[in-house]
This record gives sequence, structure tokens and C-alpha cells, in this order.
Amino acid sequence: MQVQAVGEFALIARLQQRLPPPQEARVVCGIGDDCAVLRLPAGSDLLLTTDTQEEEVHFRRAWATPEDIGWRCLAVNVSDIAAMGGMPVAAVVALSLPPDLEVAFVEGLYDGLQAVATAYSCPIVGGNVSKTAGKLAVTISVLGEVPRGQALRRSGARVGDEIWVTGTLGEAKAGLEALRHAPRLAGLATERVCERYRRPRPRLHEAWYLREHGGLHSLIDLSDGLSSDLAHICQASGVGAVLEAAQLPLAEETRRVAAALGADPLAYALHGGEDFELCFTAPPGRIAPLQADFTRRFQCPLTRVGYICAGRGVTLQLPDGRCHPLPVAGYDHFQAATP
Amino acid sequence: MQVQAVGEFALIARLQQRLPPPQEARVVCGIGDDCAVLRLPAGSDLLLTTDTQEEEVHFRRAWATPEDIGWRCLAVNVSDIAAMGGMPVAAVVALSLPPDLEVAFVEGLYDGLQAVATAYSCPIVGGNVSKTAGKLAVTISVLGEVPRGQALRRSGARVGDEIWVTGTLGEAKAGLEALRHAPRLAGLATERVCERYRRPRPRLHEAWYLREHGGLHSLIDLSDGLSSDLAHICQASGVGAVLEAAQLPLAEETRRVAAALGADPLAYALHGGEDFELCFTAPPGRIAPLQADFTRRFQCPLTRVGYICAGRGVTLQLPDGRCHPLPVAGYDHFQAATP
Repeated sequence: MQVQAVGEFALIARLQQRLPPPQEARVVCGIGDDCAVLRLPAGSDLLLTTDTQEEEVHFRRAWATPEDIGWRCLAVNVSDIAAMGGMPVAAVVALSLPPDLEVAFVEGLYDGLQAVATAYSCPIVGGNVSKTAGKLAVTISVLGEVPRGQALRRSGARVGDEIWVTGTLGEAKAGLEALRHAPRLAGLATERVCERYRRPRPRLHEAWYLREHGGLHSLIDLSDGLSSDLAHICQASGVGAVLEAAQLPLAEETRRVAAALGADPLAYALHGGEDFELCFTAPPGRIAPLQADFTRRFQCPLTRVGYICAGRGVTLQLPDGRCHPLPVAGYDHFQAATP
Repeated sequence: MQVQAVGEFALIARLQQRLPPPQEARVVCGIGDDCAVLRLPAGSDLLLTTDTQEEEVHFRRAWATPEDIGWRCLAVNVSDIAAMGGMPVAAVVALSLPPDLEVAFVEGLYDGLQAVATAYSCPIVGGNVSKTAGKLAVTISVLGEVPRGQALRRSGARVGDEIWVTGTLGEAKAGLEALRHAPRLAGLATERVCERYRRPRPRLHEAWYLREHGGLHSLIDLSDGLSSDLAHICQASGVGAVLEAAQLPLAEETRRVAAALGADPLAYALHGGEDFELCFTAPPGRIAPLQADFTRRFQCPLTRVGYICAGRGVTLQLPDGRCHPLPVAGYDHFQAATP
């Protein structure tokens, strides 16, 4: 059955049925009014972020289930909350739907949204349904909170800071390339990288831990790619950065996919977007003592990849010691091919 | 110059330059990080709402300037905050842009957004820019606040309540029809109704006043049309409503446009969406004493149009006393023609 056969208000009722009533006491009023009403204890600063996922730009239906797409749509927003060191409070979802889209597809998408809502305690409290003459698009806005004065911004990096990243880099890019070139990779294990691409895991609790224990000066999530996102930190902070290529954490599967496609895995790690790992800067010596506890707690590596210096832009230091300026080559919507 | 020639990050920088730094002390961090950071005094409940405006669905470039379109995009969200009796805190703007869109158009749109941001103290604190293969779409989410426990919901209407509306009804519909059939209306004064369609004025301060003084039981803004929006109140409250056709406030210009097009002005008032007037219910006798003060203060009529009764749905009482059930004929995205 198609969306246009059900109508706007019946569709909203069906979608609402797929969402359990929010368990959070702070949701005073959820879906079904002009606004959601939320009640927070005093002492928090509020975080507000928005992100759009468009079919054929951010995802393809051939490569992901409706649940995967829903997961991704909310996860990327939760990652922005993580990137400030906060926790989500609630989300609102604006759907732009082609009239001939199947209702079952939208319901699957909502199941994926709800999976993230449950996993990260980010109840969906409202939204909007609109017709579009174009492709499916999902814009989500998330309200978050962080202890007063504790939000971690891009602009706090200082000369001498160490640069660290969580997890491994370039896997989402490897997954995207594996999906694009599936026939050429027959027999190669690609499930893990494809899953990284399809279902990004925001580092929410990791960021909270690091904010509480790590004395961080700046924090960003890796959505556009390390070269681009670290450049954002440098620009906002008025500093430069040196990345040590030999230190970049790469998974074995990423290396194998890149090798099979004749690509440089280092380029995946530097410029591949959508890993949604954290990149942060902290005073020298602050993070290393936390590494063992962090890794045990979150099953997630924590790797020092460079340092902040005076100047501008990001410099890449190769294993042989040579340095060269790193071009910002992360994702730009209007200067990139579609996936 | 087209959007694709400028690129995502340079475009964001250009748009940011069109927005003055927020004057509000509660904006701790505006555009340029993963999230905006906002600080509110204790004692408020938070409101969160989102709305999308799509080209060819909600607006046409032929009928409105870029500034008009920007105005509309933020105004409809501010109206949702008004519809809870709240005040806006901040907005985030997600743009879906065709790559060949002119940068000057997007800048004009931002000027329109900023005009609303200034008029209603709703600073734009962040957003997202995405490419789309479809038409221009703008999704805005607004955070608002209302004194704790004071949010006015749709679900509070009680049997015996009076039903009131602000302003005059059907003007946006008259404006839309006037734009559609401009050649047939040559010589007729339509500027006022066209302006109502192009630049809806959220009844923000009016709603705040009514919440403080009117003992309101329920409140909604008229976005889909009175028949549809009042039905939302009835459904949410588990009550019925009687609308008295003779009482519906219609402007002379609306009557003239309808007459020239052979249409029923009552249908404009009942089913025409996008007036963004307020519709509310209150105990008998509570509102009439406020009428003179309200009208003087806001230069806006306040009209009793019916009452809440037991039962379900909305009944229309004609001037001759006959009653019939009012079909819900407001705007449904998937069961309506495009404008």
C-alpha cells in the first residue's frame, strides 16, 4: 500500500503506533500536539542540532533496508550530541515522502529510528509529514543536554594538545566502496565494514566519559572525514595540526578492501566520511592513563594520532618523516559525486 | 552564481554572514559547531517542533520572493510555538538545495528567515546544508519555552467551552486563489490577501496574552484549516464541537475574491489552511471581558465562533439553524492537489 492511499493523518497514526510511549519522565507531551513539551532539571545547558539524510545523496535503498536507513538518520544526529559531550533529550522527525512510497517502507524506517531512540535514550516526540516531488528525505532535529558550561566545542584546541581518535578509521568508506563494487569483491569478508557504513554507532557514552575524565580542549565527530573535521577544529581554534600517518588506526578489513580495489587505505582513513568516531584534543599526558580503562569499558581503541601546533591547516607527517600539507578532501555536498 | 560553484562550506559561511550574532544571552554557542548551546533560566518547560516547506508543495517561486519564502518557513514554526502559549528560544535550519540553485536566492531566503528571527526573537543558531536531486526544501526546528506546567494543549477542551478564533479566516486561501487565478481578478484589490498567504504572521504575543489572562482549556494554530484543526482539538479532547457559520469572521476582500471566482467564502474560512490564526476553547464568559483590551493591544479581532459539546466531530450550524456534520476537508498532503 502506498503512502498516498493512506493519507497524511492516518499515516501519522500508524507511525505513532510503532513508537512506544516515551519512558522518560521529562517528556511531558509527545507526538500529537503543535509542539512536544519537555521538562529538564535545572543545571543543564541545552544542545540543538539538525541533519538531513537524502535518498541518492546519503543513502541508497539498494544498499540498505528501511530499518538501516532509519537507524542512520537518527544516529548521525545523536553523534552530533556526542560531539559536544552531551546526552540526547528528544528528537523530532520531518519526513518528505514521495506519494508512491510504500507505507511498509516508512514503517520500517520508523522501526530503525526507534531502535536508535531505545539504544541511546532519545525518544521521538514529534515530527512532520510532507509530500515531496523528489526523493525520500528525512530531517531530524535533536535536543540534548550537557552539564552547564561543560559543552565541548571545536574552538578550544591549544598549541601542544595531543590529537586523539576513538575506534578505527576509514571503515565506513571501505563499506561504501564494498557496496559500490560488490561484484569485484566476491569472496572477501566485507560484512563488518558494510555494517559500519549502514549502521553508524554514535560514540555517545564514550564522549561523556572523555568529557568527565579527559580534560578535553576540543571535540568533533568524524562525519565528513578526518582531514576535513580536524581542519574544522584548527580553523575554529586558530591553530594548526600535525597528523602522523603511521599512527592512524586502520582495521585489517579496511586494508583488504582497499587493496582489492587498488585504493590507498590511508586515503580512506583521512578522507572517508561517516565513521562517526570522535576526534579530540587534550593536554599532553592526560589521555594515555585513561586508555586501558576506556578500552575495557567501551571495547573501543583510543589512539593518539598527532598534535596541535601553531600556524594553520593540517600537515600530514609520513612514516619516513616527510611532511606535506593535507588538502581538505572530506565530503562537500556540492563538490562531490553522489554515493 | 550557483550553489554548486560555491561549495558547501563557503555557502554556509556566506549565509552565516547574513545573520547578525544573536543578541540573546541564552545563546552560548551559535552557528559553527556540532550543536548550538543554549542556556535557559530554570522554571520553563521546553517546546520542540519541526516543519518542512517544499517547493511546489508549500510554495512556488513564481508567487513569492526568496525573502517571502524564508519568512514563511520560519513563521509557520513560530506559529507552532504560539499554539502552545510559549515563546521561541532558537531555530535550526536544514536546507535541501538543488545544485543549480542561485546563491543569491539562498541568501534572499536567509534574509527572510532573519526578518522573522528578529521580529519574534527567535535567533537562528545552526543548521545543515544538503544537496538534493529534487526541489528546494527547508526544514526548520524551533526550540521554545513556556512557564512550567502552562503549555496549552489540544487535549484540554471541555463540554460547554466556548470556541474562539483570532483575526479573520480564509484570507490565506483567498490569497492563494488570487495568485492562481490572477488574470481573472484584474482590477480587484488582492494585495492584502496575497500578503497574508505569502507572509503569515504567527500570533505569538496574542497567544501568550490569552494564556496568561484567558483561562484557556485548549489551543491550536490554524495551519490546515478550521474544520481540520478544530477536529484535532475534538479528537484529542474526546469531545464534539458546534461551529456557527454566521459568526465566522471574514474580511471583505476575502468575500470579493471568492465572489469573483464563483467560490463560497465560507468554504475558504472553514477549509482554507495557512491562516495561522489561533483557535482556542475557554470556559463560558472568560474571554468576552478581554475582547476590548485584546483588540486594542493587538489590532486583532477576537470572535466567538461556537461551543464544545458532548459527542464527536464538528457540526456546522447554518444561519437558518439547520445543522450538519462538517467533513474534515483541511489540507492532507497525500490527498490534495499541489498549490
